[in-house]
Amino acid sequence: MPELRKDPVVDRWVIIATERGQRPYDFNPEQVTAGTGFCPFCEGNENKTPPEVWAIRSSGSAPNSPGWQIRVIPNKFPALAIEGELNRQGLGMFDMMNGVGAHEIIVESPDHGWKVSDASESKLFDIFRSYRERITDLQKDTRFRYCMVFRNYGAAAGASLAHPHSQLIALAITPKRVKEELHSAKEWYHEKERCIFCDVIRQELVMGDRVVLDNEHFVVLSPFAARFPFELAIYPKRHCHDFTLMGDDERRSLAGTLRETLKRIAVTLQDPPYNYILHTCPNTTHGTGPTRVNYWLTLEHDFHWHLEIVPRLTRIAGFEWGTGFYINPVAPENSTRFLREAELE
Amino acid sequence: MPELRKDPVVDRWVIIATERGQRPYDFNPEQVTAGTGFCPFCEGNENKTPPEVWAIRSSGSAPNSPGWQIRVIPNKFPALAIEGELNRQGLGMFDMMNGVGAHEIIVESPDHGWKVSDASESKLFDIFRSYRERITDLQKDTRFRYCMVFRNYGAAAGASLAHPHSQLIALAITPKRVKEELHSAKEWYHEKERCIFCDVIRQELVMGDRVVLDNEHFVVLSPFAARFPFELAIYPKRHCHDFTLMGDDERRSLAGTLRETLKRIAVTLQDPPYNYILHTCPNTTHGTGPTRVNYWLTLEHDFHWHLEIVPRLTRIAGFEWGTGFYINPVAPENSTRFLREAELE
Repeated sequence: MPELRKDPVVDRWVIIATERGQRPYDFNPEQVTAGTGFCPFCEGNENKTPPEVWAIRSSGSAPNSPGWQIRVIPNKFPALAIEGELNRQGLGMFDMMNGVGAHEIIVESPDHGWKVSDASESKLFDIFRSYRERITDLQKDTRFRYCMVFRNYGAAAGASLAHPHSQLIALAITPKRVKEELHSAKEWYHEKERCIFCDVIRQELVMGDRVVLDNEHFVVLSPFAARFPFELAIYPKRHCHDFTLMGDDERRSLAGTLRETLKRIAVTLQDPPYNYILHTCPNTTHGTGPTRVNYWLTLEHDFHWHLEIVPRLTRIAGFEWGTGFYINPVAPENSTRFLREAELE
Repeated sequence: MPELRKDPVVDRWVIIATERGQRPYDFNPEQVTAGTGFCPFCEGNENKTPPEVWAIRSSGSAPNSPGWQIRVIPNKFPALAIEGELNRQGLGMFDMMNGVGAHEIIVESPDHGWKVSDASESKLFDIFRSYRERITDLQKDTRFRYCMVFRNYGAAAGASLAHPHSQLIALAITPKRVKEELHSAKEWYHEKERCIFCDVIRQELVMGDRVVLDNEHFVVLSPFAARFPFELAIYPKRHCHDFTLMGDDERRSLAGTLRETLKRIAVTLQDPPYNYILHTCPNTTHGTGPTRVNYWLTLEHDFHWHLEIVPRLTRIAGFEWGTGFYINPVAPENSTRFLREAELE
């Protein structure tokens, strides 16, 4: 069973998932070997993965057989275990609990060579639907406080399998980065009775020089204090705390927006590795105690879901780890200009 | 002039240092080319670097000529500018200031192929002396709140030049990661009147299974909630908030401790890339206003300097960026065992 451990000084949890690694020499990055050519995510290899938990399939095709368009499966090497109680405990001044959670793979296409930046809008629409369905389903489990959806594209971005896929991790803890956003958003709302993200969007639209895309439903920004070259964020214009509450119109618009954004990145930066990460609200469907209710009371007013996109262009060195302070060699205004000027065919 | 910008939601500053990068294609990691063979840090090439600010030299040798053992120079491509005022300003809801700071390189040996893990103790003693001298000197500048010393070893750890060197960055802001430690340490001290780091050391020494090294002056731990495989921290046993206040005995002991630690890492993990980062207290030499004095009042009691060592064995993917939540495939108890059992000739 993996363990969740909390750093005694800084409020940061870590998953210790020992089963994934064995001996020290397994971790020498120089020794990573190329794939063998076999891909468990390709159509026809359904019996090489754990049984699917959700899929979009051609009518008449049986689960765990060919005929699917999107297929969600548990990760064969999960960082967290789906069964078991949390069993929170202290060990002297240390805090820990069982590594209970879900770790799923959203296989986005039966086609190994498919690319999101070439996808149709209806395909992306369905991918977002799969995110929503899985988040909604996992949030029924009261052990889970947070569902994090993310996509690693390219080996330098951490993708260990090239076949196009996203991942979903359901956690018993709201992660530190999200907590920081929730906390600031709550403070801002308390003071101003406005959403801090809505305020950022309004100011960026007025200033204009960090707006990569702007349409009816979404805005794509190169954030004012971007940590990385060409870092971007997609915000819905309609204030909403919860990704799963998006309507069909918005979802279709997000499909087009993400497609164009990734295409501009691919053209400008020669198809770089990237990560995208969905920041939606924590699981609010459980818990009725007064503390919890109080905590969530303003959440739908103060938080605003968004998607962060980080092309992986620079190496993270000691300075960044040691400080949490980033050096970005490209001003977001310049990133914006390059991305806007990209010629899409 | 580089800019410091603060994220409006999360309390995180970023250096926008545009001069360092030019066009988008400069950032394609596939296009990084090997060095030309010329090394500006090698003995004899002193005129290819900015003039030295400090050095240990053979008696009689002139500054900026051969004959040195350790040489400190300003970074030729600094992330921050040494001249100028901070000029703090707001831009609507955004905060920014001039990117004023120092960025120095500590060239640790005239010999290109020299390795810290093979160093003599007296050599490491001198390197630590150079850290102390430069921190002490830069802290006289009241614009600087924090001096961060770090070392990147190997290209995967962010070292752009192979010649052995450390770096020092003096900042107008205490970085987020350090602030989090300072904050927790202060709260703990307020509650218990004990240093939180001293408490961690005591508990780890009792438990024993994460203690890699333990001698008169220092203890090397694989932290309970280590983020990365084989992550380590070196703590002085004597409570002290400030690296520069280390005595000669301690400095000699630290030299031996770091040397053995890096040797054990090199043997166990086949000479991996790594970062080490010094966490010492912020600059306390300036400012006499009541708020500032109050802030520093308990610092010498509650903070405890330490050195973090992070071998770079795993890739950081979207999950880690999105959450601040880490998956560590090697339990620190196992790292400890492997490192303890390493055969050092």
